[in-house]
Amino acid sequence: MTRDTVVSLLDEIARIGRDQRRGGYSRPVYSAAELELREWFVGQAERRGLDVDIDGNGVIRAWWHVPSRSTAGAVVTGSHLDSVPGGGAYDGPLGVASALIAIDHLRSRGVEPTKPIVVAVFPEEEGSRFGVACLGSRLLTGAISPERALALRDVEGDTFAEVLARNGVDPRGVGPDPAGLGAIDAFVELHVEQGRALVDLDRPVAIGSSILGHGRWRVSIRGEGNHAGTTLMQDRRDPLVAAARMITEIRTIGRATPDARATVGRVLPLPGATNVIASSVDFWIDVRHPDDVVTAAIVAGITERLSLIAAEEGCMAAITEESFSATTDFDPFLRGRLEEMLPDAPVLGTGAGHDAGVLASHVPTAMLFVRNPTGVSHSPEEYAEDADAEAGAVALADVLEGLAVGVGTT
Amino acid sequence: MTRDTVVSLLDEIARIGRDQRRGGYSRPVYSAAELELREWFVGQAERRGLDVDIDGNGVIRAWWHVPSRSTAGAVVTGSHLDSVPGGGAYDGPLGVASALIAIDHLRSRGVEPTKPIVVAVFPEEEGSRFGVACLGSRLLTGAISPERALALRDVEGDTFAEVLARNGVDPRGVGPDPAGLGAIDAFVELHVEQGRALVDLDRPVAIGSSILGHGRWRVSIRGEGNHAGTTLMQDRRDPLVAAARMITEIRTIGRATPDARATVGRVLPLPGATNVIASSVDFWIDVRHPDDVVTAAIVAGITERLSLIAAEEGCMAAITEESFSATTDFDPFLRGRLEEMLPDAPVLGTGAGHDAGVLASHVPTAMLFVRNPTGVSHSPEEYAEDADAEAGAVALADVLEGLAVGVGTT
Repeated sequence: MTRDTVVSLLDEIARIGRDQRRGGYSRPVYSAAELELREWFVGQAERRGLDVDIDGNGVIRAWWHVPSRSTAGAVVTGSHLDSVPGGGAYDGPLGVASALIAIDHLRSRGVEPTKPIVVAVFPEEEGSRFGVACLGSRLLTGAISPERALALRDVEGDTFAEVLARNGVDPRGVGPDPAGLGAIDAFVELHVEQGRALVDLDRPVAIGSSILGHGRWRVSIRGEGNHAGTTLMQDRRDPLVAAARMITEIRTIGRATPDARATVGRVLPLPGATNVIASSVDFWIDVRHPDDVVTAAIVAGITERLSLIAAEEGCMAAITEESFSATTDFDPFLRGRLEEMLPDAPVLGTGAGHDAGVLASHVPTAMLFVRNPTGVSHSPEEYAEDADAEAGAVALADVLEGLAVGVGTT
Repeated sequence: MTRDTVVSLLDEIARIGRDQRRGGYSRPVYSAAELELREWFVGQAERRGLDVDIDGNGVIRAWWHVPSRSTAGAVVTGSHLDSVPGGGAYDGPLGVASALIAIDHLRSRGVEPTKPIVVAVFPEEEGSRFGVACLGSRLLTGAISPERALALRDVEGDTFAEVLARNGVDPRGVGPDPAGLGAIDAFVELHVEQGRALVDLDRPVAIGSSILGHGRWRVSIRGEGNHAGTTLMQDRRDPLVAAARMITEIRTIGRATPDARATVGRVLPLPGATNVIASSVDFWIDVRHPDDVVTAAIVAGITERLSLIAAEEGCMAAITEESFSATTDFDPFLRGRLEEMLPDAPVLGTGAGHDAGVLASHVPTAMLFVRNPTGVSHSPEEYAEDADAEAGAVALADVLEGLAVGVGTT
């Protein structure tokens, strides 16, 4: 049998969920594509003799059990298989494939873990279907209530509860699992870098130091839908003009604050026809800053401008927070151990959110980043050289071996 | 048997194509909803002993033949069954239902037409699926080439040619039909008013005088897609910010020109995710003005601003005309005859486009408008009182009787 590599695993799934219109991949959680990826993962885990279960929040876990089959002290790695619309091939799947290959490396090395090793696949990391990023880890940690999560709706109007039930996950089982979290000794997520720091440093792999605080806000503007031909300009209450003015302002506010990012990437006018003045427009704002107080001030400033613009345009605007994650510094003790294990790896912060960031406040957590020559992410241009992808899996194997062999806790 | 009315016919189709998300109806051409409406129409026509055929462009025609079965000198009425997304119940179906009821009135009156009377249903009047309004009548008259029309794509990426073939219309048969048009003596379309003029005049029915010149332009902006968290504000080439600035400017330009309307109602960022800077944005502009030279000047002004804004934002922008219809004055002789037949009906222009406007340059054409108490159209609020709907059908019957009985041409 040919030995698997990270690249050969990613090749196996390269055809799944391609997006002809946007380019790249669209693999929203519980779509046909993502379900096919899950099935593929389960098959790969079982081929490796791992015991697969699915927790109450739809997180798939593949266990390399210790002989006692105790779940305590687990060393967990993994990532996600869902993607943004038109995303790249690496964001998520690289971490999952690298975890499987890291297991292979440990087996080849004859490693006998004294703590269980788990490869986990988290659902809805991107929030591209239900609007809340890291939904699986947020539920697991209690960062979002089951009530709120289950009522989230996708663009088809289906609730998260309905979609879970349709996919064999009992909505009544969703929610925080403090016992499960308490049994985790360490969580390490490997991810493609979403920037060019490793390119500039000429290194294949980095250790994560922190995740920029970030949140999502939804703006809903109501105006008056009408016919584009028969409605005079002065009689209009056009919510898309209000939204356009707001989007321009949000960029201005983002630019005016050092180290801030403020982005609008999604806008949804209703009904959304060429010859119809929209009756309402929803758009989403992504705001990030290292200082959570500054993030709050940016959002307050945006909110104030929104009200003024809406009033000027004869519209009503409402802004609601869909998610917020404070700036997260990863566990310094665990990070120190990774620095010892990977002495050549630089330490980098990231502006991107990850399940690791959500878990970090409950479990000692670390991240590894793999070089991305384009520096681009959430786009088909996202990339990792084959050699770097394999180097990432070796680094992850080194970390898992260091953490899962021996006595005591991290 | 209970006698049908316009209201009873509209009630029969009230459940078809409801849009739960937007409200109102979404009945794009050749969707399940529109196909169901077509089937309903064919059934209604056959119940009335009309002979149904479908022309090469997918226009359904229900013939009340003269004994010779000659098709020459036909008096054609009808409208369309497709809708904008989230549209009202009357725009299109009111004209179709009124035509059927007008036939009933002529039968009750014992009228024996000396010219064939045809009830026609035109496909893709709204352009909500393939982007070109009045696509059926444009093909019929040669206002759009078969090559261009067949290559149009819907949002799923399916071409018009593929969708036609799937629905039993041979794409090779699409195109102008000068002989068919030459056989038409008059075309009269009844439509719900898309404004409040009849409310202000306190009349149920008006005769159309003209259609405002209008067109659709598609703007495509390309920037650089990237991660919303990891990309610094100063490194961005964000096409949605460029689009937002443009949409605001388009409103300003529209407002600055008396009698102009300039609308953006549809905007499509790709990939369209909250945590992704868009890589490209398409949006559509609807511009209308009574003077076609002014319309051209407005579009030229918009185009100039687009280039400047795109350059400032590091993006590339292209603008393409999807359709343009000059301001149309309906046939004055035919209109004079309608004024004699309906002495109480005021004469009104309209800002909305119709198949009647496209046919008007090839066939003597007229329109009737039925009062709309809200004045709103392309929206669930679009409405006609029951009594006004029935009055419209009576007026249409009067017109058909006047045009189809007797000798000579209009």
